[in-house]
Amino acid sequence: MRKIQNIYDDEKFFSQYKEMRDSKINANELIEIPTIKGMLPNLKGKKILDLGCGEGEMARFFIEKGAKKVVGIDVSQNMINEAKKHEYKNLEFKILPMEEISSIDDKFDIVFSSLAFHYVEDYYKLMKDISSKLKKNGYLIFSQEHPLVTATIKTQDLPKYIEKDGKRYYYLSDYNDVGKRLIDWNVEGVVKYHRNFETIFSALKESNLRIEELLESKASEEAIKIVAKYKNLNNRPFFLFVKAKKIK
Amino acid sequence: MRKIQNIYDDEKFFSQYKEMRDSKINANELIEIPTIKGMLPNLKGKKILDLGCGEGEMARFFIEKGAKKVVGIDVSQNMINEAKKHEYKNLEFKILPMEEISSIDDKFDIVFSSLAFHYVEDYYKLMKDISSKLKKNGYLIFSQEHPLVTATIKTQDLPKYIEKDGKRYYYLSDYNDVGKRLIDWNVEGVVKYHRNFETIFSALKESNLRIEELLESKASEEAIKIVAKYKNLNNRPFFLFVKAKKIK
Repeated sequence: MRKIQNIYDDEKFFSQYKEMRDSKINANELIEIPTIKGMLPNLKGKKILDLGCGEGEMARFFIEKGAKKVVGIDVSQNMINEAKKHEYKNLEFKILPMEEISSIDDKFDIVFSSLAFHYVEDYYKLMKDISSKLKKNGYLIFSQEHPLVTATIKTQDLPKYIEKDGKRYYYLSDYNDVGKRLIDWNVEGVVKYHRNFETIFSALKESNLRIEELLESKASEEAIKIVAKYKNLNNRPFFLFVKAKKIK
Repeated sequence: MRKIQNIYDDEKFFSQYKEMRDSKINANELIEIPTIKGMLPNLKGKKILDLGCGEGEMARFFIEKGAKKVVGIDVSQNMINEAKKHEYKNLEFKILPMEEISSIDDKFDIVFSSLAFHYVEDYYKLMKDISSKLKKNGYLIFSQEHPLVTATIKTQDLPKYIEKDGKRYYYLSDYNDVGKRLIDWNVEGVVKYHRNFETIFSALKESNLRIEELLESKASEEAIKIVAKYKNLNNRPFFLFVKAKKIK
């Protein structure tokens, strides 16, 4: 069997990641979470599956908003340990990689995922598995790293970007070369997967997931007031958001 | 009234453009046209409106493939003069800017456009006008410059790209700043409009145009054999292709 990456159980990675998330001054808190919350339908009475739930913050939010049942899965023992520290009724956490959701014996009104799909190698299979866990007319709502962030394979002597007249120019290459990328983030050699829009669109369509909303992250003036460099996220969006309906 | 750009009637622009197109060794012939032809449904008995038809090459192709009626419009007198040099039954050419198609008193099975939408300022109005000219279940099939080509606003001292280890790295900025761009192409200061994917998706959806296929241009091995530098089009796609159905 193919080895599934579990970087969140790397000690150095996890402690640096946790510090960043706990600080609440990060692009997740200031940009990603407000946007994706705005894409959610009414959650009252809904059954929700959260893929790559991490510490379970969104899963708890779903329960607070009236969800009937929430299942959060994550490949990381560290994350699920954190998630289980809070006790909520109708909320269940499991150590399970996203690649194995077909083992879950239930169907959901909503499948949700925040910033985790770029770790999954087989996007077509992922969408097929998600579709099989969704009820008809159910929603897949997810964020992932934007294709413009994952595309470029840099040579060692190129910086990440250059600054000219107060603006950042990022280097762009390899956009149509979809596949594996090695990134240094907290630790060296984190594996992510790049997909272009064509692949994203086609994988969802093939699994009867019809895109109803597509957003590209922008930094609000409020977020830029807190972290000035976030204005650069408008030069190159960091997150992509999709809401798709299972049509049959 | 807002002045509509008519760069194809600029003498210098037109002669350089015509030389490039007539040579048949260009990205239109080798990449764009084969891709968009592959997205067409069976044309037998169909009524087709071609927006920005240029010299009418595609319009004639539609008639050859069995279309019942084809109307080609273009803002440029030069282009329509060229188009009218060939006489085809059921094929009509008019000097008309895309901004004024609501004056056409007919409905079509297919609205087609090759590499012209990036000249139109109001994308939402364009999609609304197109939708009103389409029969229910009719198709809009178009190509336009890819958002990654139109995005970046460069400072004068930046080159278009840098080369490292045989690969081109393009500069990327201003992706989320949708709007006007001034480009030097054959002549100085050609006006184009940049849209991100969010805008494209949202404008079509608002006009009941549901995207069924989305492609990003790749250079085939065959095209790269003819023009070696086309391999760089895989680092940054040049064209975006969309096929959308009018759903109500």
